[in-house]
Amino acid sequence: MAHYPNNPGFTYALRPFRAEVDLQDLELEGEVPGDLDGTFHRVMPDPQFSPMFEDDQFFNGDGMVSLFRFKDGKVDFKQRYARTDKWELENEAGKALFGAYRNPLTDDPSVKGKVRGTANTNVIVHAGELYALKEDSPCFLMDPLTLESKGYTDFGGKLKSQTFTAHPKIDPVTGNFCGFGYATTGILTTSMSYFEISPTGELIKEIEFENPYYCMMHDFGVTEDYAVFPVVPITSNWDRLEKNMPHFAFDTTMPVYLGVLPRNGESKDIRFFKAPRNCFASHVMNAFNDGTKVHFDIPVAPNNSFPFFPDIHGKPFNKEESLGFLTRWTVDMASNSDEFEKSEQLSQNPDEFPRIDERYATQPYRHGWELVFDVTKPYDGPGGAFMAIPNTLGHTDLATGKEKTWYAGSESAIQECCFVPRSADAPEGDGYVIALVDNHVSNYSDLCIWEAQHIDEGPIGRVKLPFRLRQGLHGNWADASKLPI
Amino acid sequence: MAHYPNNPGFTYALRPFRAEVDLQDLELEGEVPGDLDGTFHRVMPDPQFSPMFEDDQFFNGDGMVSLFRFKDGKVDFKQRYARTDKWELENEAGKALFGAYRNPLTDDPSVKGKVRGTANTNVIVHAGELYALKEDSPCFLMDPLTLESKGYTDFGGKLKSQTFTAHPKIDPVTGNFCGFGYATTGILTTSMSYFEISPTGELIKEIEFENPYYCMMHDFGVTEDYAVFPVVPITSNWDRLEKNMPHFAFDTTMPVYLGVLPRNGESKDIRFFKAPRNCFASHVMNAFNDGTKVHFDIPVAPNNSFPFFPDIHGKPFNKEESLGFLTRWTVDMASNSDEFEKSEQLSQNPDEFPRIDERYATQPYRHGWELVFDVTKPYDGPGGAFMAIPNTLGHTDLATGKEKTWYAGSESAIQECCFVPRSADAPEGDGYVIALVDNHVSNYSDLCIWEAQHIDEGPIGRVKLPFRLRQGLHGNWADASKLPI
Repeated sequence: MAHYPNNPGFTYALRPFRAEVDLQDLELEGEVPGDLDGTFHRVMPDPQFSPMFEDDQFFNGDGMVSLFRFKDGKVDFKQRYARTDKWELENEAGKALFGAYRNPLTDDPSVKGKVRGTANTNVIVHAGELYALKEDSPCFLMDPLTLESKGYTDFGGKLKSQTFTAHPKIDPVTGNFCGFGYATTGILTTSMSYFEISPTGELIKEIEFENPYYCMMHDFGVTEDYAVFPVVPITSNWDRLEKNMPHFAFDTTMPVYLGVLPRNGESKDIRFFKAPRNCFASHVMNAFNDGTKVHFDIPVAPNNSFPFFPDIHGKPFNKEESLGFLTRWTVDMASNSDEFEKSEQLSQNPDEFPRIDERYATQPYRHGWELVFDVTKPYDGPGGAFMAIPNTLGHTDLATGKEKTWYAGSESAIQECCFVPRSADAPEGDGYVIALVDNHVSNYSDLCIWEAQHIDEGPIGRVKLPFRLRQGLHGNWADASKLPI
Repeated sequence: MAHYPNNPGFTYALRPFRAEVDLQDLELEGEVPGDLDGTFHRVMPDPQFSPMFEDDQFFNGDGMVSLFRFKDGKVDFKQRYARTDKWELENEAGKALFGAYRNPLTDDPSVKGKVRGTANTNVIVHAGELYALKEDSPCFLMDPLTLESKGYTDFGGKLKSQTFTAHPKIDPVTGNFCGFGYATTGILTTSMSYFEISPTGELIKEIEFENPYYCMMHDFGVTEDYAVFPVVPITSNWDRLEKNMPHFAFDTTMPVYLGVLPRNGESKDIRFFKAPRNCFASHVMNAFNDGTKVHFDIPVAPNNSFPFFPDIHGKPFNKEESLGFLTRWTVDMASNSDEFEKSEQLSQNPDEFPRIDERYATQPYRHGWELVFDVTKPYDGPGGAFMAIPNTLGHTDLATGKEKTWYAGSESAIQECCFVPRSADAPEGDGYVIALVDNHVSNYSDLCIWEAQHIDEGPIGRVKLPFRLRQGLHGNWADASKLPI
């Protein structure tokens, strides 16, 4: 009987939604700029069937992709599952066959060796396709407008990596899609690879290398000359999988590194710089280099941010220490030292889910937006969540150090935001920021629109859904020029 | 810009939903009988586009049909618009073209003369098709399982009536679908017709007759030998339409009649019996005859129940007098009198939306279920509705006079219920009652399942939706044997 786990990853704000939806001409409130022509895709983990384990966790859900299509002052909505191999196999069986998060040992024997990917982490348009991504599996393709699933790709047999990051960067200078894989040759392995895909979707290069240890490398940085890899001890081992413990655990005793690979280099060129102390870090705001000096901006927390990936030594979760602050790490590829040159905190607000004007990815930049945990206000989410919930949108002006915020209210949480340029040639940061704001009391989600540099004035417009979506992970804007005709 | 009226027909519990949805294997709670094999279809008015008038009303929305498919202990959900001529024309235009409720004078000139139907009132399976019905227009057909729209039918050119009731009865003895039309030759006309459609979907007969005056004849009764028509002064005229006033108004000064037509008779055989007093009545529970004596069971209210169809003489709406009580009207076709023989109140609870075990339609029967307004508890709906909201499910045993109720709680409202027999040959009333219960605080709808004769014990199971549906109108269960293969 269809039943969802009674654990904090499935109740309240994380209650599964699972509905494939078509909804045209969404109700609008306030100002929705009539000249916006493009798509906002986002994805949420959303299990097709009741999970096999009562302690299943949120990240294990099948990817449900939402599409907001802006055109002529109207917004249409469409939502479809990424019909991955896993989704198809389970759909045919009418029940879950794949077991615990990142643990193939718990799968039904009938699916042994099948791709476990859920395509549930990020969705981004490139080369006319929607790449639906989950870091433990290959790149999954969907049609950006119909959301029809097209299946996994290995780029014509060229890409060796069996895994594909959910946090690629598109280099605005070359138009190349820059990505990487970790555990590229199998689960728990330290093999990695960096790759670039051309604007027309051809694999251009792949550089294989080794990670100092197996870790969840959820995101990375790309500069004009380098690819940058944060090595943070969210780690695992076969013993954990054999015992069906949560795949990942956080280890406060292990070193943190920043790996830097010249984009035009070879495997042997990678260098790993050691951070001044153990820390937690996950999503990257941006990276850029000034000659051999590499700057890498990322929210850094003094301790584990993920209660569902517990401390490997059994230490209790520390919610206060779980909050990160935007930090700039600087290393110098010309230095003889294997340590960081600098680690500088850039934000006074605890924050995560950093975003930029993507036209400035890989480049020196000024504007960042992020979700903020305003600890002076409720940040557990209504109903009491088990971890901090972003309650505020933030804008950081890195030129002046000024930060602006907008508090969503005690009933609400904000999902990851996304910058939308006012026009193709607008200056950096001139445009809008959009984000889903979920009201957990009225139980509705609105896609809110802010003037990007005046977020503190509140949304200028709202695109209203007739339901509340489940908490999602990541999403991206695509200008109409990037969409299939 | 897509905007919905800020009036009580569109806010709160009546906020438009508009989403076409596919959702498989709904979350279940408690007991969902594993041997139920069939469909529950229901429909809600749900405007595809922002209505043309800010005072637009709830009944004017496009028909959005919901399907709950029960099979093998699982329940799948699908929801689609009835793609009526109106829906298609407006869809192509990208905006509303049809104006006020039942007022073609307010339409965009481009759609003059087009069928205004919305198919938003009732959905019922007959002859392998889903009949999606709205009383002011022809019968619209959909596929019962895919919900694909097939368009209007006039039964191969045979049916003369331009209108088709949303409250047909299926005669369990003959299997005939018994229906009627009013204003059959044009809006505001007094022309009516009674018709029967065979189990295979062929028009068998049509008897035309005249109504004493134009009124909203929303429902009727069918007995083994007679068709029975309640004439209640929810009326209108061209002056109202020219002034764009609400189409219908209630007239407390006009007589109420019960029209009785022998099913095997002719136009001239109809007789209209005068009720003892003016009253409001809408939905019929059942009717049956004992020789020439015709019994007709219907909730009757002393005054207008619909605040949105105001008093024609300007009297203010009286919420207390708007509540009806199940009443048995008896007339005798052998009598020389043109008055009722009897009018007897059958229920102590204010009620509406009466239902029966449909296998006993047209026949003497014992069990009825209805929505009850428990006036000792909040019955405005949370947030304060503009009219009474059913807060309770009721069961009436007409043999013993005993009534059982189940109160849904102050946060909830109940949508029309439907009886589902435990098996094809189970005794009358042996089975389940199902109904959507909307929680307007948590903002979710559950399809609840009760033991039909023990509703006071509360639902035995719940089929859970991940959103709240808009208030709907009517729906029906169809056993798997009635569905297309």
